[in-house]
Amino acid sequence: MCYVDLRLNTNIRVSLPAVCFVWQIAMIILFGVFIRYNEESDVRKWIEFKHSHNITSDIENDFYFRYPSFQDVHVMIFVGFGFLMTFLKRYSFSGVGFNFLIAAFGLQWALLMQGWFHSLDPNTGKIYIGVENLINADFCVAGSLIAYGALLGKVSPVQLMVVTLFGVTLFAVEEYIILDLLHCRDAGGSMVIHAFGGYYGLAISWVLYRPNLHQSKRLNGSVYHSDVFAMIGTLFLWMFWPSFNSAITAHGDGQHRAVINTYLALASSVLTAVAISSMSQKRGKLDMVHIQNATLAGGVAMGTAAEFMITPYGSLIVGFCCGIISTFGYVFVTPFLEKYFKIQDTCGIHNLHAVPGMLGGFVGAIVAAAASVEVYGREGLIETFAFEGDFATRSVLTQGGYQAAGTCVAITFGLVGGALVGFILKFPIWGDPADDNCYDDEVYWEVRVLFNH
Amino acid sequence: MCYVDLRLNTNIRVSLPAVCFVWQIAMIILFGVFIRYNEESDVRKWIEFKHSHNITSDIENDFYFRYPSFQDVHVMIFVGFGFLMTFLKRYSFSGVGFNFLIAAFGLQWALLMQGWFHSLDPNTGKIYIGVENLINADFCVAGSLIAYGALLGKVSPVQLMVVTLFGVTLFAVEEYIILDLLHCRDAGGSMVIHAFGGYYGLAISWVLYRPNLHQSKRLNGSVYHSDVFAMIGTLFLWMFWPSFNSAITAHGDGQHRAVINTYLALASSVLTAVAISSMSQKRGKLDMVHIQNATLAGGVAMGTAAEFMITPYGSLIVGFCCGIISTFGYVFVTPFLEKYFKIQDTCGIHNLHAVPGMLGGFVGAIVAAAASVEVYGREGLIETFAFEGDFATRSVLTQGGYQAAGTCVAITFGLVGGALVGFILKFPIWGDPADDNCYDDEVYWEVRVLFNH
Amino acid sequence: MCYVDLRLNTNIRVSLPAVCFVWQIAMIILFGVFIRYNEESDVRKWIEFKHSHNITSDIENDFYFRYPSFQDVHVMIFVGFGFLMTFLKRYSFSGVGFNFLIAAFGLQWALLMQGWFHSLDPNTGKIYIGVENLINADFCVAGSLIAYGALLGKVSPVQLMVVTLFGVTLFAVEEYIILDLLHCRDAGGSMVIHAFGGYYGLAISWVLYRPNLHQSKRLNGSVYHSDVFAMIGTLFLWMFWPSFNSAITAHGDGQHRAVINTYLALASSVLTAVAISSMSQKRGKLDMVHIQNATLAGGVAMGTAAEFMITPYGSLIVGFCCGIISTFGYVFVTPFLEKYFKIQDTCGIHNLHAVPGMLGGFVGAIVAAAASVEVYGREGLIETFAFEGDFATRSVLTQGGYQAAGTCVAITFGLVGGALVGFILKFPIWGDPADDNCYDDEVYWEVRVLFNH
Repeated sequence: MCYVDLRLNTNIRVSLPAVCFVWQIAMIILFGVFIRYNEESDVRKWIEFKHSHNITSDIENDFYFRYPSFQDVHVMIFVGFGFLMTFLKRYSFSGVGFNFLIAAFGLQWALLMQGWFHSLDPNTGKIYIGVENLINADFCVAGSLIAYGALLGKVSPVQLMVVTLFGVTLFAVEEYIILDLLHCRDAGGSMVIHAFGGYYGLAISWVLYRPNLHQSKRLNGSVYHSDVFAMIGTLFLWMFWPSFNSAITAHGDGQHRAVINTYLALASSVLTAVAISSMSQKRGKLDMVHIQNATLAGGVAMGTAAEFMITPYGSLIVGFCCGIISTFGYVFVTPFLEKYFKIQDTCGIHNLHAVPGMLGGFVGAIVAAAASVEVYGREGLIETFAFEGDFATRSVLTQGGYQAAGTCVAITFGLVGGALVGFILKFPIWGDPADDNCYDDEVYWEVRVLFNH
Repeated sequence: MCYVDLRLNTNIRVSLPAVCFVWQIAMIILFGVFIRYNEESDVRKWIEFKHSHNITSDIENDFYFRYPSFQDVHVMIFVGFGFLMTFLKRYSFSGVGFNFLIAAFGLQWALLMQGWFHSLDPNTGKIYIGVENLINADFCVAGSLIAYGALLGKVSPVQLMVVTLFGVTLFAVEEYIILDLLHCRDAGGSMVIHAFGGYYGLAISWVLYRPNLHQSKRLNGSVYHSDVFAMIGTLFLWMFWPSFNSAITAHGDGQHRAVINTYLALASSVLTAVAISSMSQKRGKLDMVHIQNATLAGGVAMGTAAEFMITPYGSLIVGFCCGIISTFGYVFVTPFLEKYFKIQDTCGIHNLHAVPGMLGGFVGAIVAAAASVEVYGREGLIETFAFEGDFATRSVLTQGGYQAAGTCVAITFGLVGGALVGFILKFPIWGDPADDNCYDDEVYWEVRVLFNH
Repeated sequence: MCYVDLRLNTNIRVSLPAVCFVWQIAMIILFGVFIRYNEESDVRKWIEFKHSHNITSDIENDFYFRYPSFQDVHVMIFVGFGFLMTFLKRYSFSGVGFNFLIAAFGLQWALLMQGWFHSLDPNTGKIYIGVENLINADFCVAGSLIAYGALLGKVSPVQLMVVTLFGVTLFAVEEYIILDLLHCRDAGGSMVIHAFGGYYGLAISWVLYRPNLHQSKRLNGSVYHSDVFAMIGTLFLWMFWPSFNSAITAHGDGQHRAVINTYLALASSVLTAVAISSMSQKRGKLDMVHIQNATLAGGVAMGTAAEFMITPYGSLIVGFCCGIISTFGYVFVTPFLEKYFKIQDTCGIHNLHAVPGMLGGFVGAIVAAAASVEVYGREGLIETFAFEGDFATRSVLTQGGYQAAGTCVAITFGLVGGALVGFILKFPIWGDPADDNCYDDEVYWEVRVLFNH
């Protein structure tokens, strides 16, 4: 069944190993030059830190505040995103396997790029890392994995490595602008992760538009068991999203509240996603695509506001609206985008990440602008919005404005960056599949037997 | 293959969206009126709390004692219960999907109902929630998900929403009676979750008895890969059951001991389940149904006693007996119940939840009655059984009696409540499938292709 | 399709239940005699402990330092190992099911055997257990589960129980020699778990060599969905390996650093495994076997050194090399071993556990020997290498020598122990399958239907 494609050469026997080796060796060199343990993961420094800060118990090590959430985030990145992308009938290996590859590469690059902006000691020129850096690296990678959702089935693993290299770099820069320069709050990344990642993927997909993709139509769909596999991804994303949105918030009440808010928003979007899915089909039948995706929209949209005092019912309202909007997106907007905007979005990241992420950014802006001393207390306002140092005099209204501006920055980075990366990926050297060969694992994997006969 | 059934109309295009929207809007309104953050999840209150209680570290926030267990419980509810119910050859979408839907609805309703009884401040009229409420909501939902196990394949999603609405309500009331009025201890819910949920589901199934269910016999069974999917559910339930039984026990030794006891009981029931399964079949072959279910019986039966000083070997004995009883139940009792009592129990919840839950309640009663100052210490007895306030003078023997009474209350609530709910579900308005159309995802789901041809 | 095999009787209706019952009853008796709660899981003792040590918060209970990691390790043992072994087209039930059975038995036996060496109070003659014992029991069982990887498809469950009984016993002894007598450090078990388990399984497989195994060749391979199931195992192992290697290290910086090092080594081995896999195939196609296994080699190889100050780039280098070595092993060494050494290694544990484990032992030796006061601080050196009591005067160079010696002890125990156990398993009483009946679930399981027709 394997024939030589005359137009496109999908042989990646040189390019893929070359990219992996060169980049991994570069990582080793750069880590050797720059990366060191921080004062909570270095044995000598931690002992000194405990002495100098009169800390009597190791439980005060940031590790114990962060590690359970970190592991949940890690599961979301590898099992959540990975299995969510196994839904295609013959692209499950690539869905979970390439996700694995690019995440493993991306997180190393992210430790460097994000560390450069946030954990660099200018005196020593070294980046000092701990568990919070690991969480942030997973977050950073998520942007590129979201983009993979739009490209699923249409690109080669070498192209995905390029998407990730640039995606992580762009992410680190936009994050620095949004979090440090604009001083936005975005603990769960509605803006920096979802809006950026969503529009980044859509822009790439727009540049890589394939007018003859219908030639692979027979493989662009699920089979029974591949849909069940995808539910593994959905559920692990759904269950652990409270950890995602709370992983790097303030210790104590901040993490606690972010969990509650996210939990409620997610529960609410399940019900409205089911409702709209049923309404959109003959005889009220549910569509697995909606259940797999739109049920998660509430978590995306709470990425910014989860740590704020949005109130429990506020969280339910956010989830309610986003479940509706996301499912409508799958029913109407994705076909519309493909037909009129020439954007082929395999997983519908427009509806799960781009739009809910953007909305989440604006929800965060509104909630921030509405913050008051009565609700937060004076100390609480300072703690929640980090009104310290250069930003000690910023008002909540100003903060709201900056939050909205941050959302626009994230979208702009996604669109412009994605367009540029898309043009790079158009060079005919990356081993991408032909139009009639998309969504097929056999292009990049040794596939032995399909059934157990 | 789709024809219009003249007797039953399974079109849920109006009823399902209507129920989802009305109930979700009701949740938003009720949450707006009643639900607020508690003093550990509210930024102002937590800062004040720390000041007033001289707490210097955020690690004392209850969040850090409870969150790892909470996430494990959450996995059990959504992946554990969900995937355990994917075992049928053509009902995997409904197994995992409807479980997802009703759990997401149920936990919101549970926060209200349980909060009303346990977290209401009578001065403000508000319910204050934190991570412990989230765990309890998951527990509360578990009762209805257990009931779904008996009904699997025979009811519509609208009916399941009704089962959950009443199930959560009944749960909150029986829990209030058992835990507050009778002052029973039941940290892992042998009584309030498993005995209640098991008999609730059996009673509903009894009322909904279908004499012609054999017409769907061809679909009431597994295929190879659906059995492997179900093992995902089994294993996540099995692994995280120690978290389930310890999630809301006393900080420190209580959580620690509950984990050890549950771990041991579960290990023990694996061996006896395998032994009986092998004995019950020609040539000693194992039956996947037993491995998927009866291996969990030890966890159910330790739901009450796990936090007590039952001793490690006591835990092994409980698991030993329940592994045997549960497997025998699958071999002999389930067919017997169907034939003579007209109870059709798809997942065999009688053997995994009802009976082991009841036994767990009585085990708890015996272990409580046998508690002594020598073993617990005076302070330990007070801490373990909360012999404080109105109950400061209660003896352990009396406590044992109340534990046994609590078990009977749970069973009664399950049987009577289930019978009532069953009659409600008999109205011909809920869109349930015809007798020859049961166990079939095509009734409620868009099913595209079964195999990857 | 079921015929009576004249040479081998696979009927285990007597032997399997007998072994399960006898051994489980023995466990109950032995636990009754020996096992008690320790001072952190016993209510009276914990209250006394808090009073006598002036501990004011329950968060100081070791439970809170260890439990999140424990649960991750638990997932690795049951879902990780279990699903990794579902890759065969018709042996998924046995892969995940027998793994479940022998782990559940093994951990009980491990609590006794390891407890005897490490948690026995000579005054009372009792073994006192807490969460650290549970983690160690999971570790101990891992050795036997690794061995199962080599035997997969060729042995009966009764034989596996024997493998586990002896495997756990041998483990406890070699661990005592390596950790206590030689005073090696091996927190993640490169030596005591992976090198031992790997060579133990290879030695058994060597003794049980089947010259006519090619008669089952048709079943010794994967199908599409069984490979996706196996990726569940791979990913949970990969994600939670940082917890594995940090679960029993020193509180605080030790756990923190072990997580970072393992995380980096694993990320690095993904890239080199992918590179070599692609290079080894026509047209650069990836092989699922490599992705499922060799990506984990970095975690194995960091089992000893993860808690040391190996530096982040040191971790990347270890992962880099082991990803290459492991994938080469799958491509060249496994066929070579089968052809010339008569070792049939179904899962390739030689490449994933034996060799990376051995290398990890030597890496640990080198890193230990290179430890300095400048890097660790004086207090840090003592803490990291436990240079206390009898070992207070040991130098790091001596420590390095002992680490290397420990690796050799582990390999020796594996090879000699495995050969002995292999001879025991050759008795014709264990119900193992005929040569033309291997890799087939139908021998030990009721298999109903393969597809959903």
